[in-house]
Amino acid sequence: MSASAQHTEPVVAIVVAAGSGSRLGASVPKALVLLDGVALVRRCVDNLAEAGVERVVVTIPAGFEDDFAGALQGADTQVTCVVGGGRRQDSVRLGLRALGHLPGTTLVLVHDAARPLVPAVVVGRVLQALRDGAVAVVPTLPVVDSIRRSAAGTSSVVDRSRLRAVQTPQGFRLDELVRGHTHIELAGLEVTDDAAACEALGLPVVLVEGHRHALKITEPVDMLLAAAILAAEGTP
Amino acid sequence: MSASAQHTEPVVAIVVAAGSGSRLGASVPKALVLLDGVALVRRCVDNLAEAGVERVVVTIPAGFEDDFAGALQGADTQVTCVVGGGRRQDSVRLGLRALGHLPGTTLVLVHDAARPLVPAVVVGRVLQALRDGAVAVVPTLPVVDSIRRSAAGTSSVVDRSRLRAVQTPQGFRLDELVRGHTHIELAGLEVTDDAAACEALGLPVVLVEGHRHALKITEPVDMLLAAAILAAEGTP
Repeated sequence: MSASAQHTEPVVAIVVAAGSGSRLGASVPKALVLLDGVALVRRCVDNLAEAGVERVVVTIPAGFEDDFAGALQGADTQVTCVVGGGRRQDSVRLGLRALGHLPGTTLVLVHDAARPLVPAVVVGRVLQALRDGAVAVVPTLPVVDSIRRSAAGTSSVVDRSRLRAVQTPQGFRLDELVRGHTHIELAGLEVTDDAAACEALGLPVVLVEGHRHALKITEPVDMLLAAAILAAEGTP
Repeated sequence: MSASAQHTEPVVAIVVAAGSGSRLGASVPKALVLLDGVALVRRCVDNLAEAGVERVVVTIPAGFEDDFAGALQGADTQVTCVVGGGRRQDSVRLGLRALGHLPGTTLVLVHDAARPLVPAVVVGRVLQALRDGAVAVVPTLPVVDSIRRSAAGTSSVVDRSRLRAVQTPQGFRLDELVRGHTHIELAGLEVTDDAAACEALGLPVVLVEGHRHALKITEPVDMLLAAAILAAEGTP
């Protein structure tokens, strides 16, 4: 790992906004669904901007360019939308390309637009770990429920003591994330997230503490919870 | 597995209510915390009664006998409170003892008092699987977040495709659950739940579909979600 760097390193982010809104009963992409009047993607970008992110590339589904531009108008950071790819990893690779050539010290966050309420404190923990020398950082929470592994007609208990549920934003040294995505593309690997792309290179993936408010919106019940969190916080 | 039995088999339940309310900021055991004016343990018992459970033994912390009696007064099923043991498995064993000798065809559910909103449909699925011949049944949900296994200074991705998050009530043929708990006691085993006690006997543990409403209350944010679910359902 590299030595600790200055706090002035530029921070950029990719927000992956490919998800459909169908499970939420919406006719638009999930990232455009309104939570208390504000699109999920806008909440993500605002939270990243609040945590000091200077520039955000949002990877969006084709055909919704105007909708995303509208949802992100007036955001408090520099935002570019690019059409994403077939798989999540394709979208991230296109997002990296849209970021272009940046200084080797740049830090990059990859965030899921389905996690609109990620607190700035979580973003801060991810960035701090990078500044402390990590190359790949993931916010996680302990797994609360018992876990079983299913098999035909039966199942077996899994020791959950070392299992962690992964959230986003995941943070990386930009050059290493580019290297990880190039590697999985050339090797024909499919990965579930960006940390796995770096892990495929043999890089250590450091875990920091996530937050319940960074929940992933997948079903209507998650929108209920997100709305309740906002109401309890008194956030407009 | 035994052949399918009549729908007239008696169904009893043990509700484990040992948890402290400290993480919720409460000075009483978690099961006595009020959700929209009704104690969590009472919501559990009412939901089990609605699903046809004839008799419930609640294992409670010592010193709160009167509080639990008050919270359960007028419940629509036969309820007995007994003081639980040091570990969850000790409480269940004491609960089984309090149930006494029942016909060998009896079905037993073991439910966690921290899951107050378990829908009757989930209880029904567990009982149906037992009536179809299973000896141990667990309601589960797919794991939504990516999962990593933590290790010193790093972590590794875990294939989550076959992982399932376990809920309650877990259901058993009473004689087999007694046998499982006797086995783990004699063998000096520690288990995280009752399905694991049966698994230790080599019995198959069948999975059925759980429900997001059966969430486990652990932190204040879970109370927010539970209250939002109740409000959305229009439940009083």
